Order: sequence, then C-alpha cells, then structure tokens
Amino acid sequence: MSLDQARALDAADPLAFARERFRFPDDKTYLDGNSLGMMPASAPERVARTVEREWGEGLIESWNEAGWIDWPERIAARLAPIVGARADELLVCDSTSINIAKLLGSALAARPERRVVLVDESDFPTDRYIAAAIAEQAGGELRAVSAEAISDALTDEVAVLLLSQVDYRSGRRRDLSATTADAQRVGAIMLWDLSHSAGAIRVDLATSGAEMAVGCGYKYLNGGPGAPAWLYVRRDLQQALGNPLPGWMGHARPFEMGPDYVPAPGIRRFLTGTPPIVALAALEAGLETFEGLGMAAVEAKAAALADFFIEAVEVLAPEATLASPLGAADRGAHLVFAHRHAYAIVQALIARGVIGDYREPNLMRFGFAPLTTRFEDAWRAAAALGEVIAGRVYEGARFAERRRVT
Amino acid sequence: MSLDQARALDAADPLAFARERFRFPDDKTYLDGNSLGMMPASAPERVARTVEREWGEGLIESWNEAGWIDWPERIAARLAPIVGARADELLVCDSTSINIAKLLGSALAARPERRVVLVDESDFPTDRYIAAAIAEQAGGELRAVSAEAISDALTDEVAVLLLSQVDYRSGRRRDLSATTADAQRVGAIMLWDLSHSAGAIRVDLATSGAEMAVGCGYKYLNGGPGAPAWLYVRRDLQQALGNPLPGWMGHARPFEMGPDYVPAPGIRRFLTGTPPIVALAALEAGLETFEGLGMAAVEAKAAALADFFIEAVEVLAPEATLASPLGAADRGAHLVFAHRHAYAIVQALIARGVIGDYREPNLMRFGFAPLTTRFEDAWRAAAALGEVIAGRVYEGARFAERRRVT
Repeated sequence: MSLDQARALDAADPLAFARERFRFPDDKTYLDGNSLGMMPASAPERVARTVEREWGEGLIESWNEAGWIDWPERIAARLAPIVGARADELLVCDSTSINIAKLLGSALAARPERRVVLVDESDFPTDRYIAAAIAEQAGGELRAVSAEAISDALTDEVAVLLLSQVDYRSGRRRDLSATTADAQRVGAIMLWDLSHSAGAIRVDLATSGAEMAVGCGYKYLNGGPGAPAWLYVRRDLQQALGNPLPGWMGHARPFEMGPDYVPAPGIRRFLTGTPPIVALAALEAGLETFEGLGMAAVEAKAAALADFFIEAVEVLAPEATLASPLGAADRGAHLVFAHRHAYAIVQALIARGVIGDYREPNLMRFGFAPLTTRFEDAWRAAAALGEVIAGRVYEGARFAERRRVT
Repeated sequence: MSLDQARALDAADPLAFARERFRFPDDKTYLDGNSLGMMPASAPERVARTVEREWGEGLIESWNEAGWIDWPERIAARLAPIVGARADELLVCDSTSINIAKLLGSALAARPERRVVLVDESDFPTDRYIAAAIAEQAGGELRAVSAEAISDALTDEVAVLLLSQVDYRSGRRRDLSATTADAQRVGAIMLWDLSHSAGAIRVDLATSGAEMAVGCGYKYLNGGPGAPAWLYVRRDLQQALGNPLPGWMGHARPFEMGPDYVPAPGIRRFLTGTPPIVALAALEAGLETFEGLGMAAVEAKAAALADFFIEAVEVLAPEATLASPLGAADRGAHLVFAHRHAYAIVQALIARGVIGDYREPNLMRFGFAPLTTRFEDAWRAAAALGEVIAGRVYEGARFAERRRVT
C-alpha cells in the first residue's frame, strides 16, 4: 500500500472526471459525503439565479414564468435515472421524516384491517420515532425487531414494512427485490428509506416492485445542508392512495381554493405546503452532478474505494476493527470501524483535516461518495487513522467536550 | 388625488427608509408583498455565504462551526419582536401546512375528552384541508362554520379553534385577545394562523394568551419563495405538549440515536427533520429587514397606504367595489375589490407592470407591505386600475387561458 498506488488507481478511474463537477476545500480529506455531499460547482450560480433574478426581479410572477410551481415534479425527474424509477413516480418535498410520516399514514389507510408497522430496531432514529408515532396515532402498533428477525416478523398482521436499504451505521445492504418480495408475500406494503443508497449504489426501484420509498437530498445527492427530501409511490398505486397531510399544494386545483380537498391526479397529491424554491435550486444542482453517469459505474467506484480503504486500514491501522460487511455487494458506500476510543479518534482526525464522523457506541464512520472521493483520500485517511491510533493522539483533553453534532 | 400628493406622503413617511433594505425591479408597481415579499438587499450575499463558505468550504463541520444546528431557534428569535412573543416560544421549521398539522395533533392529544376542531369555512384552504384530515385521523370531527358563527360554535366539545387572524381574501382582522378569550372560556385551545398578520400589523402573541400559532415566512416576512414557516407554543405549555411528528431533530439528544424518542425540553421538541439551512439563510435576511422598526409604526404605515388606495380607487376606478372592511382597525395590510371581470383585469394590470393577484370568485387583491410599498405605488395602481376598467382593456383574448398560479 502506498500513496503512489492510490494515485495510480485515481489515474485509471473512469469516474475521476466527476470530481470536477464540485468545488471543495483543498486542505481536507473529506470522507463524510454520506452525511453532507460536497458543493456542486454550479450550485452558487444556480442558487444566485433563483434568489437574484427569479425572486428579486421576477417576484411573484416567477411562480408561472420560472415555472416554480412545477419544480417539485420537474426536479424529481432528475432523480429518476439515479433510483431506477419513472419520473412521474417521484416528488421532491419536505424532509425525510415528514415523507416517512406521509407514506406510513397512507399505507396504514390502505390496509385498514392491519395495524402493525414493522421496523428494524437498529434503523435510523427518525424512522423508528416517526413509525412509533404514526402507528400509535392509527390505533396500531410498532414492532421493532432485530435486522435478522425481520423476515420471521412478517406476518399477515403487518400493514407496512419500513426499512433502510443501507444501514446508517454498519453500512449493511439489503436486497431491494428480495426483501420487497418477502413483504408482499404476506400482503404488507414495502416502504424503503433510501437515504444511504440513492446516489451511492445502483437502485432499481421499478424492478423491485416496491410500493413506496423516501430518501434524503443532502447526502450522496449533493443537494446542500437540509436539502428537500424526496418520495416515490409506484405509479399504479397513486390513484388509490391518499396523503394524510393534504395541504393545498397537493390539491387538484389549488387556486380554486374550494371547500373540499380534491387530490391531484398522480404523484403531486403527496405535496403538502408551498415548495421551498431556494432550497430546490440547490438540490437541482446536486442532482445534475449525476448527469450522464451510469449507476453501475458509480456503485463500482464506491466498492473499489471501500475495498481499498479496508486493505489500507488493515496495513496502516490494524487496531481499528471493521464493523461493516466485508463484501462490497453486502454494503452501501460507507464503512464503520470499531475502536473503544472511537469518539476521540474521530476528533483527532478532524483536527488533522481528515473528516469522518462518529456513531454511537464506538464506531468511526467513513463515507466513499463515488463522485467526489479519490483513492488518494482513502489512503490519506487510513494513514492518518494509523498515526492517530499508534501515537495515541486521541488522548488529548480537548476532545473531552462532546460536539453537538457528531 | 394626484401623483404629487402621493409623493408628498412618501416624503413625509417616517418608514420610507425601510424600502432601501430591499432590491427590486424599477419597472414594477408591486402590490403583492402579501403573497411574496420583496428580496432583502442582503439576501444574495447572505445565501451565498451559506452556500459557498459554510457548505462549500466548511462542509459537515458547519453544523457545529457555523452553528447550523441551532438555526431553527436562533433565527426564530428574530421573529420575537415582530409577533410579540419570547424568543424561546418560537421555532422556524417546515411549511405552514405541516406546522398546522403538528400543532393541531398536539392540541387534540392535550384534550383527549374533546374531538372537535373548529374552523372558519372561508379560511385559507390548507388550514381547512389539514384540519379535516387531522380531526378525522384523531377520530374526531371538523366543524367548519361561517366567520360570524364561530362564537356560537364554541362549545365544550371543541378541543381546538384554528383561525387566521387576517382573512386571506377579505383582509378582515380578528381581535387576537378577544377571540383567544372566547376559545379559552370553553376550554378550547387557540391556534392562530398569522400568515397574513406577522410583519404586516402589530401582533401581541404573549399578551393575547393564545396557546399556539403558526405563520408563513415568505409573505410580509420577506423570507423568499417557499421560505420555512414558523410556529409558536406558549412557554408554560411546552413541557406538557407533544409533537405528533417526532423526528430525530426534536429529540433531547439526537446524536445518541437511542431506542426511544425523548422530546427536547422546550420549543425544540416541535422540530421534526433536518433544518433546511440554505432556505433559513434567506429567511434570516428577511427577518433582518424589520430590525429597529416598531410594529406600531409598521401597522400605521399599512393602514395609511390602504386608506389612501381606497380613496384613490373611489376617484379613479369607481367601478371596483371594496370588499374589505373600510376601517383600518378591522383589516390586515391587504385589500380586495370585487368586479365581475376581476381575473382579466388583474391580468391586464400585470401586463402593465402593476402586480396584484386574483382570488376566487371575483376579487382583485392588493397588498400594502409596509416596508416596501410607497404611496406612489398605491396611486399608480389605482390609476392603472381605472384605465384598465374604463378602457375595457381586460377584454383582450390573451387572458383567456388561466395561469397556473393566480
């Protein structure tokens, strides 16, 4: 293992050009694109156009003239090739948490004879918290079981199975089609959270047959901090499903402002409030960074980077224990390593400009955003990890106080 | 009535300087700040800083270093003097529709023995649609009655009364304190929608004693298209109230990512998903435009503008019939005029650069955003209205096709 070898891999990387679509600080080794994607080079101009020209000059007329009113669908269409869905099955709106609430509520209403929402007890917190609340409000029950017990817990009491395809900690990946088929075999609706999948690995939503999905805009999709999230509802189900948070923007004719809610035909019925236009402009720049990239190549790049990092850590930082699946087909695009001083080590790495993050209880997490991460970054991070651990750099008192966001 | 008289009023206007806080097109007479506020002059730089520096360079570290994690509360604090509340009673998040859903759900949970949500049948559509859905999901009932019948419909069955203080069409204003007292007399919770009040008239939330309020960020608050909305929960009630959409950001310790949802102490428990940072930056610029302005002066300016416009229309466009209350104390900061060709007239005005909007069924709406509207604008709009009506300019065929956003 050497820096030269990493650089040779970068030189031979068919996706290396994608990094030029971003602007980034030169002094950082950034392995946290799984938490916040880098800034697309086009984002500043794209956002400035919306703020200065469309808002500042066009004012209210931009709802029609700049087409703002259609952005939730128009920008979602750019996501279609990334997640293997049809454009009219996707919508950009709200946060991942709110979209989970909407689709869980919709699924429970579609299975009135069933009241169980099944989740993985180790899934991302917001998924579990929202699922518990929505299940309770529907007079139902949350069942949170271990990842391994999901299959056995799928009974004909289950209305909807909510799962992240890629686990936010371990990076473990589920088979989209096989798990969907398991849920559908017992008549449950499958709702995927693809926050850690979309833009990182190949996702074939249409092929999987899943009824519903949600995902976040600010991780691998590079949409900016707190970017609008997205949702997917299979085309043949849209007319039969309702939105439990039926705001005016999901109305068939919002400007009639009539007495009753009439859902828009198709995916637009899952809108609630007024679209967040400035944030949508940034997200569009993020989605454009995928233009012309095949998702199989994107996934292959992520796998190669992570494999290289695993090897490098074995050599350079053997005290760190891989806590993600070893095989690339079983993972997303991030890895976690366990160490009993994980928190302090991550802080020491950040102080050296090597940016990963910490996850409870003892995990160091490193993301390999395939459009922006280089083999050189993977090598540098592994080398720094080795130095910090071997030199016990993490013992400094300055890491005693816990950061608000870890 | 003359342009000179309008200019003399502008010259004597103690709030005239506030317009310099904005950047706007010179060729428009903009009377739609009640739908979309003008762009603060500081907004482009403020948003660019967040995009280019905080996101582009700071990357994930900006959650701590730029304090992003606290923005929902920090930026809400700027709203406190505008709506007469304490900073720790306010939060910026989600859309108005979602915030209505959250607070209605919270109110219904706090009044388990009552199941009625009372609304004004002519209230803004999203309020009524969301209220109907939330009431139904709670096993309750929506009662939508006429504005005049609200008082009689307040019985001990009512869990929560949801009302806009200022009607989006007529501009009619309710007395915040008197109506709140009516609701509280029967034990109902008062939830105000202040979307057409905040930033337009003096609002004294704390004095009113109201339990809850929501409002929009993109109208008089000048936060940009689809800006994040806000919510208010009276301080003494926060600990007892729950958030029915309990996402990870409302958790007491979100980064512990523990098994159970534990609400944050105080107002932060009403957060759900990850804060929309880029949009929050624009909203902050909007709220800063109120810095140092007394809300009594802001309200007085709006009243004087609207009174002047009413007089001007009487003289210049007598065919337009005022459909708003005549007395300034009974209105917000916008006016509607009825005319059977209202839609076409509004389109003809827009074609001449005089921007108001149309509301069903026959209303022409004009907003007098007190920080940006001049008496000269009011005069020009009245004169254009008179010319368009007298000359039957609205008869042109080009207005036949209905705009998507009216």
